Order: sequence, then C-alpha cells, then structure tokens
Amino acid sequence: MSLSRQGSNAQYTRVDAQHHDDDDDEYENEARTEGTVDELVESDDPEHPANLIPELCRGFYTLGWVTGTGGGISIKKGNLVYLAPSGVQKERILPSHIFVLPYPQPSVVKAHTERTFLRKPKQEGLKESACTPLFWNAFDLRSAAACIHTHSQHAVMATLLWKGETFEISHQEMIKGIRLGGTGKTLSYLDTLVVPIIENTPHEEDLTDSMNEMMKKYPDAAGILVRRHGLYVWGPTWQGTKTQAECLDYLFEIGVKMKLMGLSVCPAKEGGL
Amino acid sequence: MSLSRQGSNAQYTRVDAQHHDDDDDEYENEARTEGTVDELVESDDPEHPANLIPELCRGFYTLGWVTGTGGGISIKKGNLVYLAPSGVQKERILPSHIFVLPYPQPSVVKAHTERTFLRKPKQEGLKESACTPLFWNAFDLRSAAACIHTHSQHAVMATLLWKGETFEISHQEMIKGIRLGGTGKTLSYLDTLVVPIIENTPHEEDLTDSMNEMMKKYPDAAGILVRRHGLYVWGPTWQGTKTQAECLDYLFEIGVKMKLMGLSVCPAKEGGL
Amino acid sequence: MSLSRQGSNAQYTRVDAQHHDDDDDEYENEARTEGTVDELVESDDPEHPANLIPELCRGFYTLGWVTGTGGGISIKKGNLVYLAPSGVQKERILPSHIFVLPYPQPSVVKAHTERTFLRKPKQEGLKESACTPLFWNAFDLRSAAACIHTHSQHAVMATLLWKGETFEISHQEMIKGIRLGGTGKTLSYLDTLVVPIIENTPHEEDLTDSMNEMMKKYPDAAGILVRRHGLYVWGPTWQGTKTQAECLDYLFEIGVKMKLMGLSVCPAKEGGL
Amino acid sequence: MSLSRQGSNAQYTRVDAQHHDDDDDEYENEARTEGTVDELVESDDPEHPANLIPELCRGFYTLGWVTGTGGGISIKKGNLVYLAPSGVQKERILPSHIFVLPYPQPSVVKAHTERTFLRKPKQEGLKESACTPLFWNAFDLRSAAACIHTHSQHAVMATLLWKGETFEISHQEMIKGIRLGGTGKTLSYLDTLVVPIIENTPHEEDLTDSMNEMMKKYPDAAGILVRRHGLYVWGPTWQGTKTQAECLDYLFEIGVKMKLMGLSVCPAKEGGL
Repeated sequence: MSLSRQGSNAQYTRVDAQHHDDDDDEYENEARTEGTVDELVESDDPEHPANLIPELCRGFYTLGWVTGTGGGISIKKGNLVYLAPSGVQKERILPSHIFVLPYPQPSVVKAHTERTFLRKPKQEGLKESACTPLFWNAFDLRSAAACIHTHSQHAVMATLLWKGETFEISHQEMIKGIRLGGTGKTLSYLDTLVVPIIENTPHEEDLTDSMNEMMKKYPDAAGILVRRHGLYVWGPTWQGTKTQAECLDYLFEIGVKMKLMGLSVCPAKEGGL
Repeated sequence: MSLSRQGSNAQYTRVDAQHHDDDDDEYENEARTEGTVDELVESDDPEHPANLIPELCRGFYTLGWVTGTGGGISIKKGNLVYLAPSGVQKERILPSHIFVLPYPQPSVVKAHTERTFLRKPKQEGLKESACTPLFWNAFDLRSAAACIHTHSQHAVMATLLWKGETFEISHQEMIKGIRLGGTGKTLSYLDTLVVPIIENTPHEEDLTDSMNEMMKKYPDAAGILVRRHGLYVWGPTWQGTKTQAECLDYLFEIGVKMKLMGLSVCPAKEGGL
Repeated sequence: MSLSRQGSNAQYTRVDAQHHDDDDDEYENEARTEGTVDELVESDDPEHPANLIPELCRGFYTLGWVTGTGGGISIKKGNLVYLAPSGVQKERILPSHIFVLPYPQPSVVKAHTERTFLRKPKQEGLKESACTPLFWNAFDLRSAAACIHTHSQHAVMATLLWKGETFEISHQEMIKGIRLGGTGKTLSYLDTLVVPIIENTPHEEDLTDSMNEMMKKYPDAAGILVRRHGLYVWGPTWQGTKTQAECLDYLFEIGVKMKLMGLSVCPAKEGGL
Repeated sequence: MSLSRQGSNAQYTRVDAQHHDDDDDEYENEARTEGTVDELVESDDPEHPANLIPELCRGFYTLGWVTGTGGGISIKKGNLVYLAPSGVQKERILPSHIFVLPYPQPSVVKAHTERTFLRKPKQEGLKESACTPLFWNAFDLRSAAACIHTHSQHAVMATLLWKGETFEISHQEMIKGIRLGGTGKTLSYLDTLVVPIIENTPHEEDLTDSMNEMMKKYPDAAGILVRRHGLYVWGPTWQGTKTQAECLDYLFEIGVKMKLMGLSVCPAKEGGL
C-alpha cells in the first residue's frame, strides 16, 4: 500500500477502513460527503495517534512543556501524519481536533503555503499547528515517526547560558538515552552530546530553513534547540521520541543547575571530571 | 432578592432556563421562592462557568496559583458574572458555591459596598470573593470575558526583583501568547512585554482604583501585577485568559531565573542579546 | 453528649452508632468483642475525619510534606481525636489504619506513656503517630480542631537560614491567611509574621515540652518550626489548619528564595521596602 | 525453558498456583506449553509484585526518578524476583511486561551472562533490566526484599558536589528514616548518614563489582550512589525500600540546596551547627 498526496480521499478512506468495524459504514459515508474523513481520528485503540496525541499532551502540560498553548507532538504512521491545531490548550485537545495529512507532500515545508489534508476538525477557526513544516523536517530528513516540540524552560535556559551554536554536555548517564541523529543507535556514556541551537524568528514557520540546514550540518543531532523558544526532538517511534525528549530535557535541566553551582558541564571538552 | 437595573430576575431566569430540562421545573420554583436562582449554577455542560470555575481552580492549585485560599477566576458570560466565594479552599469549590451577579452594575467597583446578586450559595458565611471589584475592572475597561487572579510565587518574585513601576521582558517566544491590552491581537516576538506593577494595600478591594488607573495609563497592558501579592490577568474568552495567565507566569518565572543567572532579561532595552 | 476518657467503650459505641445503619449491628458486636470500635472510622461521609486524613495526606505527599512516612495530620471532632499510625506511607493510609483517642486525656502529653484509645487498627505492629503529644499541645493550648505536621523542605530551609529563635517575614499578601495564635482572627498585611523555632531532639515526643513552652512564650504564634525537621501548625477547623499550613509553607518558600536573591525578607524590621 | 538449579519449574508453578483460582487452570496449561508461566504475573491483589511494580513506577515517574526509561524497582518475594524490562517507559509498564527470575542464582551477578527465567514477557524485543545484577547485589549482600534505582537529579547533583567517595549529611530529621545497612534498625537523629559513591561505567552491568565491593566496604550503607548517574537503594520490604528512597532523595535535595546557600551540610564533621 502506498499513499501519496495525489491520491483521492477515497483511497485513504478505503485503506483506513480496513481497521474499522463494518458498523461504521454509515458514518463513513457521511464523512466522505463532507469532504473529511473523520474515521481517521476515531479509534478504540489507546495507541492510535489521534488518541495518543491528546494523552501525551496532557502529560507534557504537567511537565511544563506545552503551557500557554505552546508546543505539542506530531505522529507519523505509515503515510499519514497526525497533528494538533495551532493556538489551542494542548492539555485539552480531543481526538476530534486532530488534523491528518498525507505523507509525503513537499508543499508542507514551504512556510505559509496551502497544505493537503485528509481530515480537518469541523470546529471553525482551527488551523494546523504552526510547527507543521518543522515536524516535516524530522519526517523528511530523519525518517522520524514522531516529533515533539516543547517550550520547556530548561531548554530555553540552556539556549541562554550556551551562547554559541551548540549546547554540549558529557559524562551523564542520561546521554545513553539519546540516539544518533535521533533515530539511529543510542549514544555511549563516553560520547559528548551536542545539540545545535538556531536563532528564533518572529514566525514559527520561518524556522523551517534554518532547522533544515542545521540538521544537515549536524547529521548526528537528535534535536534542535531554538534560542529563547524551545526544542524540537524526533525519534524512530513515538515512544523513542518521548524518551529522547525526556532525556534531553533532563540534560538541559541538570546542565543549567551545574552552571548555577559553578560545575563543569562538559568535562570531555572543558576538563574538570 | 434585589435585581439588576437592566432587567428583572425573570429575564435572567428565562434565558438560562432554555438550557435546562423541563424536569428541573420543580426545583426552579423552589429556588425562586428562596430568593436564589440555583439553576444558574446547575448544568451538565462541563464548559458552563459554574462547572469550569471549580475545575480550573483545581488546576490552578496544582500550579501553586491559588494556594491557601488565595486567587481564583471569574467568568463573564453574556450579562452574567460567575465567581467563587472569598476565603475558601479554591481546589475544593463546588458549582453550588458559585455566586452569580448581573452585569453591568456600577456598585461593584466601589469597594466595601453592597452588590446585586442573582444567585448566592445557601451555605452560611460565604461572601463573594474580595477580588470582585478587581475582576470588574477587567470586564469594564477591557470587555474581558474572564479574569484570573494568582498568588503565583513567580509573579511575586518578579515584583520584588523589578522594583519600578513595570516588569519588562523581551525576546522570548512566550511573549507571542500575550494579547495587546489582554483582549486584542497577540504580540509579536519582537515586542517588549510590559506589565505594570501596583503597590499592595491591606484590603484587596482597595486595589480597585490603582488597578483602574494603571489599566488606563497602560492601555496595552495584558495584566496588572500587585507587588508582594500576585497577578490579575484577563482575556477575550476563558481560554484566552488562561493562556495568557500561563504565558505571563512562564515569563515571570524565566525572568526571575535569568536574574539569578545574571542574564539580561530585556535585551530590547538593556542590550545584551 | 459528652465524652470523657473515663467513659466505657460501650458509651462511645452507642453515641457513634447513631450515625450508622442498623445493618452494621452484626459487625459492631464483633468489634466490641475485640475491644475496638471500628465504626468510629467507618463512614460514607467524605468529610469524616477517618476519610479526610487519608485524602489530605495524599495531597500533602504531592506537596512534598509527608515524604518518607514523615508528617501527617490529626483531626479533633467533638471529644474524639483521629490520627494516623507512625512510620507508614502517609499517601497510602486507609480509614482502617486510623487511631481514635478520647479527648481530653492528660497522659497523652507525657512522652513515652500509655495512652487511652477508643479504636486501634487491627493490623499488627501499628503504633500511634509519634507526633501525638505534639498534636495534643495544639488541642490543649489553642483549642485547635486539627494539627498538621510537615517535613516540608521550605520549612527546614527556613530554620537553617533563620538561625535565631524565630522566622520573621513582613509585607507579603499571604500573611493575611494566618490567624493570630492559629485559631484567632487573621493577620493584617501590615503585621509581621513571627514563627518560633525550637531545636530538634532525637525522639519526636521529646519536643513536647519545648513546643509547649514556646507556644506559651509566643501566644500569637500560629505554628512552631522545628529546626532541621519541619513544622507544626493548627487551626480552628481542618480547613483553617490546611489553609494556614499552605500559607506558612508559601511564606517559608518565598522567604528562602528572597534570601537567595539577596532581598530583604522582613522590611518591617530590616527596612528595605 | 531453562530452570533454576534449585528446583523444577513445576515447583515454582505449584507454589504460585496456591494463590490462584481453579478457573485459571486452562490458561496455566497453555502458558506452560509456551514455556512461560504467565500466572506468575497475574493477580487481583494490588500488592502482588507484578501489580506493584507498574504502580510504583508511575509514582516514581512523577517524582522525576525514572524519566527517559531510566531507573525502576525490583521486588523479591520468597524465591521469586520480579523486575521490569530494559529501555521501556517505566510509567507505562504493565504486569504482562514483568520478568520473573528464580532466586538464588549466581549467574545473575556476572555481567553479560545468560540468566534463568521463570517468566518472560511475550512481547518481542523485551530484555530484562540492565540493573538486574545490581538489584541482585542488594538481595545477596543485604537480604533485601526490594531494590529501587533512580536517576533523580538530586542524587546526581549530590555526586557532583560531593567529589569524594561519600555523600555525608548530619542533623536532619529525615536521617531517622534510613536503616543501618538498608535493612537493619533505623538511624538516630544524632547519626551521620554516609552514602558511598561509585564511579559510573559505560555499561550498567559493569557497575556490579564496584557496587558489590563498596557494599562490603561500607556495611552500614543503606544505598549506593553512582556518580553522574543515580542511586541504588534497598530495604527489608518494598515499603521500607520506598521509604528509604524518599528519605535519601530528600536528603540529597536539601544537601544540594544547603550547598547553594553556603550552609554546612554535615555539621557533625564540619562544625557549624
């Protein structure tokens, strides 16, 4: 099965319907009539992306990652990409708020362009997350299965205290939770973790090119920090993405604390082990 | 029972009754007899203000915003204003504890005066929140739909470290979550956020005038800090109010952390970007 | 109805049974046979002390007040005092773990003496909280309705940074949440809060006398700090006790933060407002 | 399926089956056929290790102890040891993910060797926790009933600020929650707490020998810190292990805060009480 952006809604509907009970037929027809494919976000499986995104966002809210409607997570499953609306309370998203886009589609990564959707929420005024083209970078350049964006204060503080192009830390057990390039094999305790930092822009979508360039310049980077803004991190699965988000956030937090206490954060480069 | 100047109690009751099942009639009559309109706070809709206020307050408690019975939220829907009692545990409020006032009514903004209510809780000893005239400032001067008051330590620490008339911060992504004047369009990343600070008074209601004056002096202000006390913040909807409360609190918190680390919090004015 | 420590179990059982359904009779007889009065801790009312103590302790655990089995709350209702066992995980207490003691009884305040119980948990090895005589100080000297003991790090840090006999803070809104002597009228914003600090002892019960003396020396004190240990705080009701515990903890926390930032914590005495 | 040297699989099955209803027989036979003994992890008892481990891990996640799949808990009950898989989200473990090993078995403590299992999860790719031989140290050397491993930042910061072979703290009430050697009698307030620190290694299993040696060198030690990594702590029961983990974590946290404020953490040695 191959889904492309050229495919009709019917194609997608057919494929997806294989996972649905027959008694959904009536609703499915109605959905088709309206030009949306609501069953793409309706499932009893708690690990269905449309159920996972709301649940994970509630957890991220508790961690302070998506406060004030910022941040979120996009999950790619097969050739479908699931993401949340822009500017909504992330801890209150429902499956019915989820957008579904076909993958691949090159238009996504051009900022401020029209994208192709398989499913849009019916609620008026909802727009896809402004992070969409940044999530797409992770899908395109790293074949990621998910991408998390946080506004974590630990990430932001790290970008303020590391004034150069990278955040660097070594000799921390949590480094072992990070994957090479985000989707490759995990780092060793002896590896130095390097997370590139790009400068913030007034419009989120305008980060697309600099993130793309930095991902190419640092092919081993597991995530990209945005100065005075937050983090983008991806992985081979949604679980692997969440794990790396937690490990990176932990490392930013402890790195900041170490700076406060006057400790050497990257003994591999600075000495002081 | 006293009525608002704009309309009879019957008007309010009639409007609200449209949202109620017929089988509520018996109770409604009883309520009317007692001089309260209990159905104003009885609804199965989780987004009804009488249900939202308790739920949101539980969340605010977790954030440390309304500890020790401090703080809270008032929601205005149409010409009804919903608010919680004074001096009660905000994480344990029930819909039956909610006061409902008709809007507008000028008496509210005079401190220590009698106000007009459409519904008061039956529980003895409950008094409307001492923040009532301060919430009213937001409704009157900014046409806000909700107003949140927090005792967040981040807000208080900000008022202690910014000793002048304003808290100022620039070059933070979260600034984009703040609205001009609290209810207008959102700020740009390039805007400097300015939050006026008023001096605390022994009685909460005595803040009414200085808050009012500061809101007029700073028409773009999205909230008012009270030195050694906390924050008042409002918005075009309850969601927008909560979003701005979260963004402001985040900015106070990171501003304080930046001061601790010796970083420039407002590079737009101080340089040091 | 008057319950004294001289009364027989049967007396207590009779009184309490008025709140029980008749179908409890069988169990009641069994309980009486075993010398315990289990129905004293069995109630459907969520505000019954035997239900409140477990629920409140779960909340205190989340706040970091009763970690590692430390801390807890005792509630006095009429002439019955309810408290939790010593050395158990406070976030996992069940109503069936609660001890019930008659009040008054002078033996309680003597450390390491036998006390009179109306109900003891059946589970072997459970002993009443070592805080019992300290709770009793609050009941005896202040006619308190509840007493909370925390191991909050904010309280402990305050006792380390305030090296004298008292913790003092002024010009904080949260001071208004504190009651004179713990059970009297609330303080004004213009009042200076003074919390006496006693020195820790190897055995918790040996704090009884010094706490007692300090409560007499500082009749306005709303709580007693124990250096390198934590806080005892009481109030006119369980709600008022919890409110004051939250306000004091907030004030300890912000006082410590202010010290860290080099700010004057008690401008009323130190100047610097 | 390979069996432990002490007994046949049938032995273990027989013992465990006493706790199962007869209607489990069918499934049991099936399980045996597949070479796993699934009923070892199936119980309605919330305190069964296979139910406790997931529940406790969810709590540890909230405390920041097992973020990014790190850390966890192993419980020994009779001659069965229960533990979680390696590299999975600890807050999402299910009973069906639990491994069961027979105890004793000497092969466990050799790093990178084959171990004997009574039950392995069916899900492909799951491997027993890399902490297994470290947990075994606690079972072998201290006759512990449980062992917790955390990546708590408080523990890691303590290992960075205490640069020698031990973390030391005195004159803190929470010291009284710690047991001599982890399983003996509890310390006194007058005792100095000493927690040995071993150096981290690239592979977790390679910590086995140095942990073992340090436990022998410090027979009174209730836990072992791993520099730049975290903590291992054990106890006489799972409750006692959790209590000590909370007390140690509290002491690491407050020790770090005291360093930040320039206070003497171990007055017993440093003076300054």
